[in-house]
Amino acid sequence: AFGETASSQEAFRIEYDTFGELKVPSDKYYGAQTVRSTMNFKIGGVSERMPVQVIRAFGILKRAAAEVNQDYGLDPKIAKAIVQAANEVAEGKLNDHFPLVVWQTGSGTQTNMNVNEVISNRAIEIMGGTLGSKKPVHPNDHVNKSQSSNDTFPTAMHIAAAQEVNEVLLPGLKKLQNALEGKSKEFSQIIKIGRTHTQDAVPLTLGQEFSGYVQQIKYGVARIESTMPRVYQLAAGGTAVGTGLNTRIGFAEKVAAKVAELTGLPFVTAPNKFEALAAHDALVELSGAMNTVACSLMKIANDIRFLGSGPRSGLGELILPENEPGSSIMPGKVNPTQCEAVTMVAAQVMGNHVAVTVGGSNGHFELNVFKPMMIKNVLNSARLLGDVCVSFTDNCVVGIQANTDRINKLMNESLMLVTALNPHIGYDKAAKIAKTAHKEGTTLKEAAIKLGFLTSDQFDQWVKPKDMLGPQ
Amino acid sequence: AFGETASSQEAFRIEYDTFGELKVPSDKYYGAQTVRSTMNFKIGGVSERMPVQVIRAFGILKRAAAEVNQDYGLDPKIAKAIVQAANEVAEGKLNDHFPLVVWQTGSGTQTNMNVNEVISNRAIEIMGGTLGSKKPVHPNDHVNKSQSSNDTFPTAMHIAAAQEVNEVLLPGLKKLQNALEGKSKEFSQIIKIGRTHTQDAVPLTLGQEFSGYVQQIKYGVARIESTMPRVYQLAAGGTAVGTGLNTRIGFAEKVAAKVAELTGLPFVTAPNKFEALAAHDALVELSGAMNTVACSLMKIANDIRFLGSGPRSGLGELILPENEPGSSIMPGKVNPTQCEAVTMVAAQVMGNHVAVTVGGSNGHFELNVFKPMMIKNVLNSARLLGDVCVSFTDNCVVGIQANTDRINKLMNESLMLVTALNPHIGYDKAAKIAKTAHKEGTTLKEAAIKLGFLTSDQFDQWVKPKDMLGPQ
Amino acid sequence: AFGETASSQEAFRIEYDTFGELKVPSDKYYGAQTVRSTMNFKIGGVSERMPVQVIRAFGILKRAAAEVNQDYGLDPKIAKAIVQAANEVAEGKLNDHFPLVVWQTGSGTQTNMNVNEVISNRAIEIMGGTLGSKKPVHPNDHVNKSQSSNDTFPTAMHIAAAQEVNEVLLPGLKKLQNALEGKSKEFSQIIKIGRTHTQDAVPLTLGQEFSGYVQQIKYGVARIESTMPRVYQLAAGGTAVGTGLNTRIGFAEKVAAKVAELTGLPFVTAPNKFEALAAHDALVELSGAMNTVACSLMKIANDIRFLGSGPRSGLGELILPENEPGSSIMPGKVNPTQCEAVTMVAAQVMGNHVAVTVGGSNGHFELNVFKPMMIKNVLNSARLLGDVCVSFTDNCVVGIQANTDRINKLMNESLMLVTALNPHIGYDKAAKIAKTAHKEGTTLKEAAIKLGFLTSDQFDQWVKPKDMLGPQ
Amino acid sequence: AFGETASSQEAFRIEYDTFGELKVPSDKYYGAQTVRSTMNFKIGGVSERMPVQVIRAFGILKRAAAEVNQDYGLDPKIAKAIVQAANEVAEGKLNDHFPLVVWQTGSGTQTNMNVNEVISNRAIEIMGGTLGSKKPVHPNDHVNKSQSSNDTFPTAMHIAAAQEVNEVLLPGLKKLQNALEGKSKEFSQIIKIGRTHTQDAVPLTLGQEFSGYVQQIKYGVARIESTMPRVYQLAAGGTAVGTGLNTRIGFAEKVAAKVAELTGLPFVTAPNKFEALAAHDALVELSGAMNTVACSLMKIANDIRFLGSGPRSGLGELILPENEPGSSIMPGKVNPTQCEAVTMVAAQVMGNHVAVTVGGSNGHFELNVFKPMMIKNVLNSARLLGDVCVSFTDNCVVGIQANTDRINKLMNESLMLVTALNPHIGYDKAAKIAKTAHKEGTTLKEAAIKLGFLTSDQFDQWVKPKDMLGPQ
Repeated sequence: AFGETASSQEAFRIEYDTFGELKVPSDKYYGAQTVRSTMNFKIGGVSERMPVQVIRAFGILKRAAAEVNQDYGLDPKIAKAIVQAANEVAEGKLNDHFPLVVWQTGSGTQTNMNVNEVISNRAIEIMGGTLGSKKPVHPNDHVNKSQSSNDTFPTAMHIAAAQEVNEVLLPGLKKLQNALEGKSKEFSQIIKIGRTHTQDAVPLTLGQEFSGYVQQIKYGVARIESTMPRVYQLAAGGTAVGTGLNTRIGFAEKVAAKVAELTGLPFVTAPNKFEALAAHDALVELSGAMNTVACSLMKIANDIRFLGSGPRSGLGELILPENEPGSSIMPGKVNPTQCEAVTMVAAQVMGNHVAVTVGGSNGHFELNVFKPMMIKNVLNSARLLGDVCVSFTDNCVVGIQANTDRINKLMNESLMLVTALNPHIGYDKAAKIAKTAHKEGTTLKEAAIKLGFLTSDQFDQWVKPKDMLGPQ
Repeated sequence: AFGETASSQEAFRIEYDTFGELKVPSDKYYGAQTVRSTMNFKIGGVSERMPVQVIRAFGILKRAAAEVNQDYGLDPKIAKAIVQAANEVAEGKLNDHFPLVVWQTGSGTQTNMNVNEVISNRAIEIMGGTLGSKKPVHPNDHVNKSQSSNDTFPTAMHIAAAQEVNEVLLPGLKKLQNALEGKSKEFSQIIKIGRTHTQDAVPLTLGQEFSGYVQQIKYGVARIESTMPRVYQLAAGGTAVGTGLNTRIGFAEKVAAKVAELTGLPFVTAPNKFEALAAHDALVELSGAMNTVACSLMKIANDIRFLGSGPRSGLGELILPENEPGSSIMPGKVNPTQCEAVTMVAAQVMGNHVAVTVGGSNGHFELNVFKPMMIKNVLNSARLLGDVCVSFTDNCVVGIQANTDRINKLMNESLMLVTALNPHIGYDKAAKIAKTAHKEGTTLKEAAIKLGFLTSDQFDQWVKPKDMLGPQ
Repeated sequence: AFGETASSQEAFRIEYDTFGELKVPSDKYYGAQTVRSTMNFKIGGVSERMPVQVIRAFGILKRAAAEVNQDYGLDPKIAKAIVQAANEVAEGKLNDHFPLVVWQTGSGTQTNMNVNEVISNRAIEIMGGTLGSKKPVHPNDHVNKSQSSNDTFPTAMHIAAAQEVNEVLLPGLKKLQNALEGKSKEFSQIIKIGRTHTQDAVPLTLGQEFSGYVQQIKYGVARIESTMPRVYQLAAGGTAVGTGLNTRIGFAEKVAAKVAELTGLPFVTAPNKFEALAAHDALVELSGAMNTVACSLMKIANDIRFLGSGPRSGLGELILPENEPGSSIMPGKVNPTQCEAVTMVAAQVMGNHVAVTVGGSNGHFELNVFKPMMIKNVLNSARLLGDVCVSFTDNCVVGIQANTDRINKLMNESLMLVTALNPHIGYDKAAKIAKTAHKEGTTLKEAAIKLGFLTSDQFDQWVKPKDMLGPQ
Repeated sequence: AFGETASSQEAFRIEYDTFGELKVPSDKYYGAQTVRSTMNFKIGGVSERMPVQVIRAFGILKRAAAEVNQDYGLDPKIAKAIVQAANEVAEGKLNDHFPLVVWQTGSGTQTNMNVNEVISNRAIEIMGGTLGSKKPVHPNDHVNKSQSSNDTFPTAMHIAAAQEVNEVLLPGLKKLQNALEGKSKEFSQIIKIGRTHTQDAVPLTLGQEFSGYVQQIKYGVARIESTMPRVYQLAAGGTAVGTGLNTRIGFAEKVAAKVAELTGLPFVTAPNKFEALAAHDALVELSGAMNTVACSLMKIANDIRFLGSGPRSGLGELILPENEPGSSIMPGKVNPTQCEAVTMVAAQVMGNHVAVTVGGSNGHFELNVFKPMMIKNVLNSARLLGDVCVSFTDNCVVGIQANTDRINKLMNESLMLVTALNPHIGYDKAAKIAKTAHKEGTTLKEAAIKLGFLTSDQFDQWVKPKDMLGPQ
C-alpha cells in the first residue's frame, strides 16, 4: 500500500540523485531521494509517517538557516524564495509532500532530504523555474547550505519537542491542575475516611485528598520545565560530526537566535555540538519527566475511579459525570471512561519512555542513529499527555461531585477513629477497643466502655473527626 | 482538528442514544454513540485511530455471530444483511466509518458500538430502510446479539493479533531466516577472525558467524509460535463478565468455529471466559516473545553494521548494498540504513512491550480496561517487526558480500591464533608469546621462536586457522 | 569495605597470574585472579556478589567436565580430586571462597577463574600439595580443560536458571494454583456482584471469579515450561567463540549428558554454539514468561486486596487472614500485607525483565558481555516469584474467607441485574429502568413496575441471579 | 534458611505484640513484630534484606524525632536514651539487628517496627531495664511518638536516597567528569577520523570527541541535582494519612530542620504531606535522572571499547589499560572489562527504573505501598552508578592512551575528507570523486585529478584536516 505513494500516480516527472533517476509524481514537490526512500523502507505504512510536528519544525529551521545564509552571502532572491517555501512547510501547508516513515535511516537524513527537495522545488516554482531542475534553487547547495542531516534533524527534534511541550503538554497539565485545585477548595469542608493499604484509616477532608493530586500535577509541571533548558539547546551549526565544518563562525548562534525569534521560545545554540549529535540525553531526560507525570496521572485516575465506583457496590464517595452509555449489554451502566483513557495513556508513556531510553543509550561515536524513533515517542507522549489532561478535565474532573451522604456514613461507621485515643490511653488499649468492636460488630464507643478503658464522655471529647485533620 | 470528523460536514441526520440525540454526518454509517465518543475523546488525532486490523477483525466476528445467531433463531433476512455488511467491514471497505481513537474507554466499548452502528446502518440500507432508524436492524438487539463489548473486543483483539502474526510477522521472520541461511552457506568457507568483548579472538568462518543469526531467527519463529495456542482462544460467549449471560449454550463454541473457518486459523473458544475478559496475559506473552525477537534483531543488525563499517576506517569485513545517498554533507558516504531501521524497530518493540506489560498488570475484577492500548501496541510490534524483516532482507541481507581480502588480512595478522598452542605448550607460555608479539609488533611465529618455546616447523604444524574451526 | 576481603586478613600467601604476584588470604582457596578482580571492581559491595546459584552450577559443570576429560585422557587422580572439590562447590560448602561481584567482566570470566582457582587449590589440598603452586592441579590446564569462560559461564547460567525454575519458581506457582483451585471450589455456590470498569456489573459466583485466577496461574506454569527447552541447551563445548576449538569431538554432548545426570534435568548440548555464546535470547524469553506471570500475580493480588478492603468502608467481600499488627499509629488495623509483597515482587520482575532485555539486545559479534547481570536478574525474578507464591499461599490465600453477608447484601441491591431483562424488553427499556432506580434510589423492581414495562411477577420470573451465571 | 534468624538461636526471651507472644533471640534487640515478619515473609533470603542505608536513615530520623519530642514534653531521660540508641543505628553499629527483607508490607511498617523495637530495647538496656519489657522506653509510645510508618518510612527513603546521591553518586560522576576533561585536554591536538552511522566521516580531534562525553556527564550531574529539591522534602509530620494527626504543630518543621542539621543536607518539610505519603513521584523523578545518566554511560563505554578494539583487527584508536588477564583460553587477550561493568550497570539502572515506575504509578488513596521496593531500586541505582564511575575512572579512563600512529593512518586514508571540497566544487562533483576513489582503491587526490575537477595544488590547498575542525 505504501509504495503506491509513488506508483499509483498517473503523471510523473523524472528526477535524479547520485544513484540515478527516478519517477516522481508530478503533483508532488519532493524529489528522487524521497521516492527512493519510499521504495527502500516499506515499513508500517502511512500511520508510521514522520510526525508532522517534525516536518513543521524543519520548516522553521530551514527558514532560519536561509535568512542567516543570506547574511553570509546567499543570493537574496534565492534566500527569499526558500524563506517563503519554508514558511509554507512550517505552517503545515505542504504536509502531503512528506510521505516518509519514521523507520528510515536513523539519522533522519531522508527526511532532511525530503524537506530540502520540497523546499527547493517549491522555491523553484516560486521563482518560475522547472521542478526537478535543481535550478535556481539546489536542495543541497542552497536549502541545506551550512547544514547536515546530522545537525538539522536533532535541531528539528528539539524545536518540535519544545513546541509540543509548550503548546500541548504544559497547557494541558496546568488546566488539570487548576481544575483539581478548584475541587480541592470546593471539597475542603467534607470530612471523609482515609484509606491506606486500601483499608480504612483515619479521616481527612476530601479537599486534602485532592490537594495531594494538585501537588502531583504542580510538581509535574515543574519537572517538565526543569528539563527544558537542555531541550532549548540546538545542534544547528554542528554539521556532520559536531565540528561545524562547512559553516561559518557565528552561523550556529544566529540560527538559534532566529529560531527563538520565530517560535517565541528561548532556544540557544548547544554549547557542545558533539554531545548534541551523538547523544539525545535531553530527550531521554524529558521523556523521564513525562514518565513521572504518567505515574502521577495513573495514581490520580485510579483513585478517582475507585472513589467513584458503584453505583451501589463500590466505594461510592464520588459521583463522576455521565458522558456516554456505558455498556452494550448492561443498560444504565456508567463507566469512568475518562479515567481509563488517562491510565491507558499513562501506560503508553511508560512504554514510550523505554523505547526512548533504549534508543538514547545506543548511539555510537559521532552520531546517535535512533533519532526518528526517539522523537516520534517523545512527541507522542507529550501530545497524548496534554490531550488527555484536557479531556479528563473537561469531561470528568470539573463535573465531579462529592456523594456526601455516602461519605458521612462511611466515616461515622469507621473503626479507625480509635486512633484519636492513642495519646490518651496508649496504643495497646486502643488496639483492643478496635479489635473488640470489629469482632462484635459494635461501635467503637460501645466497645471502649464495655472494656472499661474510658467513659462515654471521654470518648465524645476525645474522638472528634474534625479534630483529627491536623496536628494540635 | 479531530472534532471536524463530525462538525465539518454540511449534511447530517439526527441519531440518538440513551443519552440523547446527536447530529451524524449523512455520508457516514456510524451513529450517535460514535459521534459522542469523538466529542468526548479528543486525544491524539487521526494518527491515533483504532488500528484498522481491529476493525476488520470485528467484521469477521460480527459476521460469525450473525450466522450463529441465525442458528439460534435470528430472522434470516436480518442475519443475511448483517453478514453482508460485516463482510464489507472485514474487507476494509468501510474503514472511513471508524473515526474513533485508541484513547477511549478501556474496554473498547465505543469501538464495539461504532461497529454495531456501522453494520446496522449498512444492513438497514441493504434492506431498504432508513439510516439511523435502528429498524429493521438494531445495533444492540441484532448486531450485538449474544455479545458484549467485554467479550467482543478481546475476541477482535485475538483475531487481529493472530492474523497480523500469521500474515506479517512470521512470513517476515521466515524470509529473513532463509536469507541468512543462504548467506551462512555462501560464506561457509571464509575463515575470519572472531571477536569477543569486541576484541580479537580465535577464528571461525563467516558462515559459522551467520549460522548464529540463523539460529536466533529460527528460535524467534518458535518463540512466537509457542505463544499462539493461547492467542487462538476467543472470549466470545463470555458476554459482560465471563458467565455468558444472555447467550445460548453452544454459542461460544460455534462462534469460535465460525471464526476459525473464516480466517483459516485454529481459533477455539477460551476454556475460561473470566480469565479471557479480566486479563490479557496471552497478549503480554506474545509481546514478550516479540521482545525476544527484537533483542535478536538488534544483535544481528548491530553486528552487520559494525562488520560492514568503513569503507576505510572500520572493520570492513562485509560490503553492504548501497541503497541511497548517505549524507547531505559527505558525498559518497553509504550508510547501513536498513540496520538502523531494524534497530529502531527493535527499540520500539521493547518500549511497546513495557506499555503492554503495564496495561496487562492493571486489570481489576472482571475486566481489564487497557484493551485498546494493549492491542495497538501488539499490532504495532508485529507489523513493524514483520515489515522490517522484509525490508532488511530485500534491501540488505541478500546483497551482503564478504570483503575477502580484508577478512584474510585481519585473520592472518591476528595474535589470537596463539590459542592453538595452548594444548602443546600450556597457557602461560602461549600468553607470553602473544604478549611479546603485541609489544614488539612482530608476528606470533617470530615471537614464539625468539622466546625459544617452539620451532618454526612446530608453529606451522600447530597453528593452522582451518584446524581451529571445531573440536578435534 | 569490599577490599577488606583481601586486606583485612593477617595471614596470606603469594599467588601469581600472568600480570604478576598478589597476596591471597591464607584461609581462602581462591587465587591471584580472584584477588585482582576484588581490587579492580569495587562496585556495590557484598550484597552484589555473584548469586550463589551460579557458583553451585559451576560446581556441577566443573565436575561433569572433569569426568568427561578423564574419558579423553585426563589423569584419573587429578580428575578424581577435581570431582571431589567441584562437588563441594556444587553443594555450597565453599561459598565463602567466592567474593566476586556481578559487576565484573561481562563474560563472567573472573568468576570462572575464581571457580578454577578454588577447585584447583582445594584439589591440590586433597592431593597433599601446596596451595597456590598450581601443582599437581592447574586451574587452567586441568580444571578449565576443554573449556573457556565464554562457554562455561553461559552453561552455568542455564544450569542455575533451570534449577531455580524447577526448584523454586514452578513449585511456588503450582502451590498457589492448587490453593486458588481449592478456594474456587469452596466458593462455587456464592453468588456475588460482578465488577467491570471497577463499576457494578452482572453477577457471577465467587468461585467463577477465582477460577479466572486459577487459569492465569495454570497458564503461567505453561508459559514458563514452554520456554525451558531452550534453557536446557548448554553452551559447553563451544569454548571461546563457539567453534569448540581445543575441545574434543563428543565433549559437548558428553558434558551435557553428565550435567543432565547430575541434576536430573533434561539438559542437552546447544545445537548452535555461536548463538549460545553471542546471544542469551533463551534467558530473555524466560524472563518474558516471568514478566507475564508477574502481570497475572499483580492482577490477582490487586483484586484480593480490593475485595478484602474495609473493614467497614471498603468492598469487604473477602476476609483476609490477620498475620500481624497493621499500623504503628492505627491500632486494630489489619493490612493485606501479603498482597503488597506480591505486587512489589511483580514490579521488580517487570524491572528485572527490562534489564535482561537491554542486556540481551547488546551482544556483539561472538560474545554477549552482559552475562552476570542477566543471570542475576533472571535468578532474582525466579526466586522472588517462587518465594512470594509460597508466602502468599500460606499466609493469605488458604485463609481467605468469604464475607457472605456482605456479598449477599451488595448483590441484592445491585442495579445491574436489570441486564436479565434485555432479552425480554430490549436494551433501551432496560436502560430506562436502571436509570430511574438509580436516580430515585429505588429497587429495580419498583422502577420497572412504575414505568409500566413489566409486572411484578414477570420481574421475579426474569430476574434471578442464579439464572444469570451462564448461557441458557 | 531465612527462618533460622530466629530459630537457630539457642537462647531466647519472650516478647509480645498485639497478636500474641513470640520467642526472640536473646542477643538481638528486635522484638516480637520483627520476629513475626521473619515468619510471614520468607522471600528472597538474606540478600534481599532492607538496604542498610534505609536502616541508618531511620536512625537519623528517630534521633531527630526524639529530640523534637523532648521539646514537646517527652521525658528527657527517655529522650536521651533514644537519641543514644538511634545514633548507634545511624552509625551502622546495630546492622545485625535488622533481619527483615524488602518484600514485606508495602508501607515498610515492619521495618519501622523493627527500628522502634531495636531502639527501645537498646534504650531500655542503656537505662538499666529489662529487654522486651517495653519499660521505661516503649517502642510505640516513645520511639514512634508523633510518627507513623506511613510518614517515617518515606522520610527514611528520602534521607537514604539523598545521602547516597550526595555521598556516592555525585562524587562518582564528578570524578569521572574530571578524568574525561583531563583526557579531552590531553587529546586536543590529535586529529582523527569521525564516524557517523558507524561509518567513516569527516575529521575531528580526539579531544573534541571526549568533550562530548564530558558534556554528557556534566549534564548528568545537573540532571541529578535538578531533581533533589523534591527529594529534600520530608514526609515526617504527616503521620498516618498526611493530616498530621497525633503530632504537634511545628513538629514536622522541627524534625526536618533537625535532620538537615544531622546530615548537612538541605532537608525541609514537605509542603503537602498527602502527596508525600500517597505518591513517590520524587523518587520516580530521581530514578528517571539516573536512567538518563545510564544512557550517557552506556554510550561512552560503548565508544571507548569500540575505539579500543583490537589489538589488530579492530578500530584500535585507543589503548586501554590492561588490568587483568582477559581470557582463560586465549592467552594475551586484554578485554575492556571496565566498560563492560559500566554497560551492565547501565542496563540494571534502566531495569530498576521500570520497577520504580511501576511501583510509583500504583499507589492508592492515601498511601503508596511499593515503598521498600522503590527505595531498594533507587539506592541500588545510585550506588552502582557511583561505584562504577569510580571504578571506570580509576581503572580505565585515567589510563587511556591515544594510539596516534593508528589514528593518523586511518585519518589520512579516509575518503571523507572530500567533504572539504563541497564549498568549492559542489556536492555532486565531490560525491563523484569519493565514489571513484572508493571503487578504484585510489586516494581522493588521484581521483579528483583524474576526473579533472581540480588541480593537485587546489586539492592540497582545500583539503587540510586541521582546517576541517570548526566553522570558518
